[in-house]
Amino acid sequence: MSLIIAGTMAFDAIETPFGKTDKIIGGSATYAAWSASHFTNSIQQISIIGGDFPTEEIDALKAKGVAFDGVEIVQDEKSFFWSGKYHMDMNTRDTLITDLNVLAKFNPQVPNSYQGSEFLMLGNLMPSLQKQIITQLTTRPKLIIMDTMNFWMDIAMDDLLETIKLVDVIMVNDGEARQLSGEYSLVKAAQKIMSMGPKYVIIKKGEHGALLFHGSQIFSAPALPLEDVYDPTGAGDTFAGGFIGHLAKTNDISFENMKSAIIIGSAMASFVVEKFGTERLKEINDKEIQDRLNQFVKLVNFNI
Amino acid sequence: MSLIIAGTMAFDAIETPFGKTDKIIGGSATYAAWSASHFTNSIQQISIIGGDFPTEEIDALKAKGVAFDGVEIVQDEKSFFWSGKYHMDMNTRDTLITDLNVLAKFNPQVPNSYQGSEFLMLGNLMPSLQKQIITQLTTRPKLIIMDTMNFWMDIAMDDLLETIKLVDVIMVNDGEARQLSGEYSLVKAAQKIMSMGPKYVIIKKGEHGALLFHGSQIFSAPALPLEDVYDPTGAGDTFAGGFIGHLAKTNDISFENMKSAIIIGSAMASFVVEKFGTERLKEINDKEIQDRLNQFVKLVNFNI
Repeated sequence: MSLIIAGTMAFDAIETPFGKTDKIIGGSATYAAWSASHFTNSIQQISIIGGDFPTEEIDALKAKGVAFDGVEIVQDEKSFFWSGKYHMDMNTRDTLITDLNVLAKFNPQVPNSYQGSEFLMLGNLMPSLQKQIITQLTTRPKLIIMDTMNFWMDIAMDDLLETIKLVDVIMVNDGEARQLSGEYSLVKAAQKIMSMGPKYVIIKKGEHGALLFHGSQIFSAPALPLEDVYDPTGAGDTFAGGFIGHLAKTNDISFENMKSAIIIGSAMASFVVEKFGTERLKEINDKEIQDRLNQFVKLVNFNI
Repeated sequence: MSLIIAGTMAFDAIETPFGKTDKIIGGSATYAAWSASHFTNSIQQISIIGGDFPTEEIDALKAKGVAFDGVEIVQDEKSFFWSGKYHMDMNTRDTLITDLNVLAKFNPQVPNSYQGSEFLMLGNLMPSLQKQIITQLTTRPKLIIMDTMNFWMDIAMDDLLETIKLVDVIMVNDGEARQLSGEYSLVKAAQKIMSMGPKYVIIKKGEHGALLFHGSQIFSAPALPLEDVYDPTGAGDTFAGGFIGHLAKTNDISFENMKSAIIIGSAMASFVVEKFGTERLKEINDKEIQDRLNQFVKLVNFNI
């Protein structure tokens, strides 16, 4: 099934306790597309880049089945650039530089060639732009998933609430779930967020795994305990890409299949943090993914 | 099989965002015994109490199969008293009062009637006292488990390391695992702690569940997502009691059975936080425990 992925394609410069990168390729839609490309070769990208975005990266994504009809290229301007430094716990980071560049004028347009797509993944973006994409679709996709972040809760809560109403699945981290709902208990937070529109709430807890809520059902997915996390950048986007990539591949949006999709997203996230940037996502093969999934099965398996 | 439980029996006064208690019964060995009593009726308690400790509480524990030969009663003194206030996140708390009272002169003696016991649970206590109990045993138990806390790492690290050498299983929370090992990664922390002596390391992560490490094997147990946590006091001791209670009941210390024991400990901990103090542990029945265990199975079950 076809899958639209919208979000940023950008450059990042990252510093972690394990090292430092110059400008490398990043962006929510880049990570999500690389991750999803392991499960489906019918991905339709919506983003905006500058003339500085490497042709080789575009070609590499196209070779994996990612369409670029919806990616605007502004030749004489620069791509979005973010630079950040992670603390020892890898859960907190300082933003050093945010150069919006082309992102400041992003006015996403859904190409005709993307109409009729069955799945839509809205990566982290200004909520009004996420909404603009949804309303341009002539046929409602089978499933709309949105990611968002605390930044939009701080500066664009009304727009965010408008957009949340329109989606089927929302992904946030635990702090964001609490901020959005005003509830400390994640169970109550998820219930309140479901009352805002989405039928499914996914709460990402980093090294503690993720929770999926639907009505009164809850699924708890572990994270793989890792010896080292080299670079957590893009872990959430990679998780999202694996999640929706599996749903698009199987064309099954049952709660049972969403549980499998969360494990697959978690496995993909466990790869991406092993090296800087998208490097691991580009090199892993099906056998490595299957082995990692088997590790997840072993990790939580018990008999009562 | 017989199970020795050593630790404090005390009074607590607790304040949480949900309410406040006067002095109620608490202590690591009290919670552990109530929890374990749902799985075995051959518990041998080692503790010290004052004349103020209620006879009804002692009788209630005796009725559940808890022996008091190893509990010293100092008639003209007071029991250990702790008072604390939890913050909104329920993971951090301020200690308001610590009155050691009888605990200051605790010199645990293993009664002859306890010799030959197959299981030993050392609840949180001064490490030198935990060691004193181990060295008094004429036959080494099949399994020795110890709980400890950051306080002892701060003031009695040498004694703690001496005691750790002698045990099979150590239980700590994630912050304590990091402090004890000097490693941020919990995988590396557990490996380092295993090199100190214990063959098994259990890392408790509160609302995020628990991890069991043994050699290169890892088991990840979820916590049950709860709408409200009324009082987290004793959750770790209750977890420990359920864990070793199940092992003593089944007389099976395989890694596979320890995984089941961790789920059972987690289920017991999910009950105890629903009300203040040990109240829930006293009222729950086998059917409620079985239903809760089924919830854990459902919570993590997935197909890949």
